[in-house]
Amino acid sequence: MLEWDTHRYLEAHWAIPLYGSLFHTVNIRMAPEQIAYCINHAEDVVLFINEDFLPLIESIQDQLTTVRAYVLMSDKKDFRPETSLPNVYLYEDLLALQSPDYEFPEISENSRATLCYTSGTTGNPKGVVFTHRDLFMHAVSVCMTWGLYPGGMEFRANQVYMPLTPMFHVQAWGVPYFAFMMGCKFILPGRYEPDKILRWLHEEKVNFSHCVTTILHMLVFHPDAEKYDLSNWHVGLGGAKLNRQLAERAWELGILTQSCYGMTETCPAMTLGQLREEHLDLPMEDKISYYIKSGIPWIFSRVKVVDDDFNELPHDGHSVGNVVVRTPWCTHEYFREPEKTRELWKNGWLNTGDVGYIDPEGYLMITDRNKDAIKSGGEWISTLILEDAISQFKPVLECAVIGVPHPRWDERPCACIALKPGETATAEDVRAHLEKFAAEGKIEKWWIPDLPDGYFFVDAIPHNYIGKIEKNVLRQMYAEKHK
Amino acid sequence: MLEWDTHRYLEAHWAIPLYGSLFHTVNIRMAPEQIAYCINHAEDVVLFINEDFLPLIESIQDQLTTVRAYVLMSDKKDFRPETSLPNVYLYEDLLALQSPDYEFPEISENSRATLCYTSGTTGNPKGVVFTHRDLFMHAVSVCMTWGLYPGGMEFRANQVYMPLTPMFHVQAWGVPYFAFMMGCKFILPGRYEPDKILRWLHEEKVNFSHCVTTILHMLVFHPDAEKYDLSNWHVGLGGAKLNRQLAERAWELGILTQSCYGMTETCPAMTLGQLREEHLDLPMEDKISYYIKSGIPWIFSRVKVVDDDFNELPHDGHSVGNVVVRTPWCTHEYFREPEKTRELWKNGWLNTGDVGYIDPEGYLMITDRNKDAIKSGGEWISTLILEDAISQFKPVLECAVIGVPHPRWDERPCACIALKPGETATAEDVRAHLEKFAAEGKIEKWWIPDLPDGYFFVDAIPHNYIGKIEKNVLRQMYAEKHK
Repeated sequence: MLEWDTHRYLEAHWAIPLYGSLFHTVNIRMAPEQIAYCINHAEDVVLFINEDFLPLIESIQDQLTTVRAYVLMSDKKDFRPETSLPNVYLYEDLLALQSPDYEFPEISENSRATLCYTSGTTGNPKGVVFTHRDLFMHAVSVCMTWGLYPGGMEFRANQVYMPLTPMFHVQAWGVPYFAFMMGCKFILPGRYEPDKILRWLHEEKVNFSHCVTTILHMLVFHPDAEKYDLSNWHVGLGGAKLNRQLAERAWELGILTQSCYGMTETCPAMTLGQLREEHLDLPMEDKISYYIKSGIPWIFSRVKVVDDDFNELPHDGHSVGNVVVRTPWCTHEYFREPEKTRELWKNGWLNTGDVGYIDPEGYLMITDRNKDAIKSGGEWISTLILEDAISQFKPVLECAVIGVPHPRWDERPCACIALKPGETATAEDVRAHLEKFAAEGKIEKWWIPDLPDGYFFVDAIPHNYIGKIEKNVLRQMYAEKHK
Repeated sequence: MLEWDTHRYLEAHWAIPLYGSLFHTVNIRMAPEQIAYCINHAEDVVLFINEDFLPLIESIQDQLTTVRAYVLMSDKKDFRPETSLPNVYLYEDLLALQSPDYEFPEISENSRATLCYTSGTTGNPKGVVFTHRDLFMHAVSVCMTWGLYPGGMEFRANQVYMPLTPMFHVQAWGVPYFAFMMGCKFILPGRYEPDKILRWLHEEKVNFSHCVTTILHMLVFHPDAEKYDLSNWHVGLGGAKLNRQLAERAWELGILTQSCYGMTETCPAMTLGQLREEHLDLPMEDKISYYIKSGIPWIFSRVKVVDDDFNELPHDGHSVGNVVVRTPWCTHEYFREPEKTRELWKNGWLNTGDVGYIDPEGYLMITDRNKDAIKSGGEWISTLILEDAISQFKPVLECAVIGVPHPRWDERPCACIALKPGETATAEDVRAHLEKFAAEGKIEKWWIPDLPDGYFFVDAIPHNYIGKIEKNVLRQMYAEKHK
């Protein structure tokens, strides 16, 4: 299916897997040749297409080797499009032909239900499969973890939900399944327009959403944000680290934010910036310190940090290693990629590819994606901690830290910085800001980027389609500049 | 294990199944020969025995054919009992010998975890088995149903829990599993003494319990009840129908009560007197009408009412039939009783043996146990509805309606009534009270027991060890009287 976040997409999330078919949610932000690759690799037989993606599919129809029928969808009444596609049906016509009663077949809980492709930085996209059982167990864990632990999302049945990550991205984090199951009202935002989203959040009294930090940033710093009552709204954040500045700005508007760390392969729940019982009476600024952590495992999830020989590292707050996870909902397979599946599940745990540590309270801190980590003089520098520190400097709109080659230390960090409109700051100013953090023991002194080449001011930090910072693009830009 | 509700019993609920053994919770209220039957039928190998049950086991030791070792338990330090049993170990000694670290084996979720015997009115007790998966799914459903739907038990992690049904009765309704899993504090009452229970409920700020109606009755009508603050306390009621009088009396003390309908074979959750979203703003007296219903299915549970040919009956509020259920936690088997298992699961649904109807809002009303149902002139009379009506007559302490033989109508109802101390009432008074209910359409006029033989005043209504009214005893008493 190629679709925006509509009621049709929600219907399909339930109907297609329950009918016994594998539901491939096509990532519409991929390049056309990648989309063709995914559809062929998945051996899709029927394509459901929103009219907006009809030209795209027409342009690649000759490359599609397995598709036998096309079902077109639109919000328009009397939708009768011209198309070069063969075997075309209309979604609403097909529905109108059927009885409202249908007895779904009994299906093994271990049969495949959904498939979504995740694009690495290299190689072809990989298809991540979830079974009915995976989706069920994920839904149960999210309900229980968001619902039963005080001081967090405070999820309850019958609340009002607005998804703000697209449904083609890990089934919108699985939330449509559990929110629908629990009788929640859905406010589907269609294409994301910040002014409309803000108005709907207020008017519909939305209780909860989930989104990447970029979207939240766009909303809470929007000029209209103060006009609305957003104090009902609880938001799970993912995709990139939730920083203190953003969480505090959200709280000024009454919005409770909580960091959710996960990845496509984990459906995506893994850990959550959740309060423990002993934190419930802390002042909000201290609570935020927990809300922005990568967090503690969701119920039924197990996470550990291991060294390269797979020995578990102590929960001491500084032993950095590879993050591995087991949950009752992690994907069992990359679709038709046994070699990549074996690599993912090396040692019987799902290897996330992220590095971090666990502190004595049991909170995981992700310090880096493996491939983004900086090793300088044989020691790790956490780009995420540095980014968090730099983002607390008032003139900074957004920043990203990358590793750049260094003749003596192998790598040194470079802070790529976009300033807020009208603000100015120099490399020296940023360095002085960081020295305060080092003096307070929050970062290591030798982590601070060097003058002058450790500071790189850019107009805007580049993001990919799901809002993640594209560090590979920044590394190229830096290399260009220093050629 | 033969034990009171102690920390040892809680430890064993987790440790024995997780170790890979089948955990048989012996019903200590059974007669010694029944206990011997159960232990032999279960082929128990190790018996864990509280010192209070040592004389009992010694008295039947010659009948035990499979037990190879006895582990004795006590709250006393330096517990060194004299006993005629062979191969005796002490629980605390065995624990002290072991390392605090233990890696439990990986066990199939479908392996048997617990076994408890349920005694019918005839024949040998039947062993009800639950697998690890059953117990897990039941725990998840209870967490979600009690926790996520507003206006009910409002269960949350880290609350304070006091079990008030013994752990040998369907694993104390499965609550020790989920309450422990969710980090709740346990207040274990030991042997039940109402004055101590009331004091602990107040002092420990207990949030939730579950018990049979007899226990709640004993507590809320206790002379000390008003002395304590019980307004934190939410109670799930089972074993017998929760009547309005008892629910209203509890609410006078600030106690929220909710009817839970189930049976050993369903682990026991099946339906719950739960509010729907549209009831949340009703006044309490109207809410109580829902709290005391048999209720709507717990999440993931499916309940229907069928006729004798297994056709589903409409949700019309009066079509009475057999109640059947499917849940992901119902027992799969009576232990080593394939014939009884087949009967239980006839037509692929668990046949509860209860009869009732479903109303247009979807609430189940249990009108009778199959064997207690009264068929008069070819039509059903609900003893439970009649009992509820009679119990609202002020002088009545407790009542039970039984069917008695009638030459013309086959059966007619007889109300067995115990009056409150110091109160008086005649058969004519009770009949006049019931005629008001008939005039309001709450009962059928022809259900009203006839004068004079339809009213049978007794000193006390007899209950079995779990608080259920023994209607077979009442039928015998009635027969004796009319001989």
